[in-house]
Amino acid sequence: MTAVKALVFDVFGTVVDWRSGVARALKPFLVAHGRPEMDPFALADAWRKQYQPAMEEVRSGRREFTRLDVLHRENLEKVMQAAGIDAAPADLDALNLAWHALDPWPDVLLGLYRLKRKFFLAPLSNGNILLLANMAKRAGLPWDAILGAEPARAYKPDPRAYLNTAEILGIKPHELCLVAAHNGDLRAARKAGLATAFIPRPTEHGPGQTIDLVAEDPWDWVAADFQDLAEKTGA
Amino acid sequence: MTAVKALVFDVFGTVVDWRSGVARALKPFLVAHGRPEMDPFALADAWRKQYQPAMEEVRSGRREFTRLDVLHRENLEKVMQAAGIDAAPADLDALNLAWHALDPWPDVLLGLYRLKRKFFLAPLSNGNILLLANMAKRAGLPWDAILGAEPARAYKPDPRAYLNTAEILGIKPHELCLVAAHNGDLRAARKAGLATAFIPRPTEHGPGQTIDLVAEDPWDWVAADFQDLAEKTGA
Repeated sequence: MTAVKALVFDVFGTVVDWRSGVARALKPFLVAHGRPEMDPFALADAWRKQYQPAMEEVRSGRREFTRLDVLHRENLEKVMQAAGIDAAPADLDALNLAWHALDPWPDVLLGLYRLKRKFFLAPLSNGNILLLANMAKRAGLPWDAILGAEPARAYKPDPRAYLNTAEILGIKPHELCLVAAHNGDLRAARKAGLATAFIPRPTEHGPGQTIDLVAEDPWDWVAADFQDLAEKTGA
Repeated sequence: MTAVKALVFDVFGTVVDWRSGVARALKPFLVAHGRPEMDPFALADAWRKQYQPAMEEVRSGRREFTRLDVLHRENLEKVMQAAGIDAAPADLDALNLAWHALDPWPDVLLGLYRLKRKFFLAPLSNGNILLLANMAKRAGLPWDAILGAEPARAYKPDPRAYLNTAEILGIKPHELCLVAAHNGDLRAARKAGLATAFIPRPTEHGPGQTIDLVAEDPWDWVAADFQDLAEKTGA
């Protein structure tokens, strides 16, 4: 595994707790819109459920590359319609920025600062550059560059998302390692020739989570969290 | 000027001293290739002289977007041929990385750390993402994102380089300010609707520099260096 020069990270779920962060933003929004009885976590889940279908339009070629901020905003409109909430566009614009202001899991900052001494670090997320940069600025994530779907012009698990990222970094796919809490993401990365590291995030989807609790394939590294990954990679 | 939300920086000349850095890498290379009598600064200038014509091929549409590392490598080949130096491709590959390892001017780090408290900071350089990220990692430049020609898919002074950068940042052109030591870059930025800040770098081209010694137009800010710019912008 000494060939690995750069670590790239899935972000939503792996680096940050999107569900708590989005629910936190939804809570006062629901109160302000006269629906305090609604569960903000359920609404966060509903919003996230629109994520894959929206990207699939781009992956399939039916739609030209469109950044995630735009997809999130469209999805929010659908979620609000389904929930029967009538909100001003400016309020929805503001709520859409919840995805820019998510908190990292507790082990992330210490782990990243240690990993940064040995590796080039960047997000390889389906989030757009602005979203990821605002998140990093707020949380102090020490990325060396902001990579992902927007510079790669492709959404994971499209192989181009992984391969274009290696090309931007001027390295071979096997010199690039994806760190993710999702076995499916890692399977696609491995198929594209990347090295792989799994970190479980057993409460990403809340207390009743049933998926991605364990490594389902023999990934190159399996670690308990980012600090353990630093330990295991000798960083 | 309070509308400005993000500062983007020209890099070669404005943030880093490319001429000294490239000459520093050329010096041992010339010794190793039996040409210790050659002036590494003159050779650095000759290499840099190929920069605009190479990008012009892309700007004119005669060539598809090609990142600067590739153009630098091709230009180096020409420079070596003209100088009658026969070097192995691997040696030229290594020398090409001189552009990734340039030192910032003395005021840059203190200025950027102060500016970062108030503004979103990114390079808006013709350098590619890897070059700029390696430079930032080595020098400790605290960018919030790595922007520039590669994510914008256009070389300055093509207006798309400025406008696509504002679009990636989700802001209007007048909310984006270019900081540069080059009046021509600022003229193109202003034409595209950006705010402008001039910083003189009177030794960028060596002791006999005759161009860009002063602000040639009434730019929105004119500062002595990055620390003075922080002062003048209230950062």
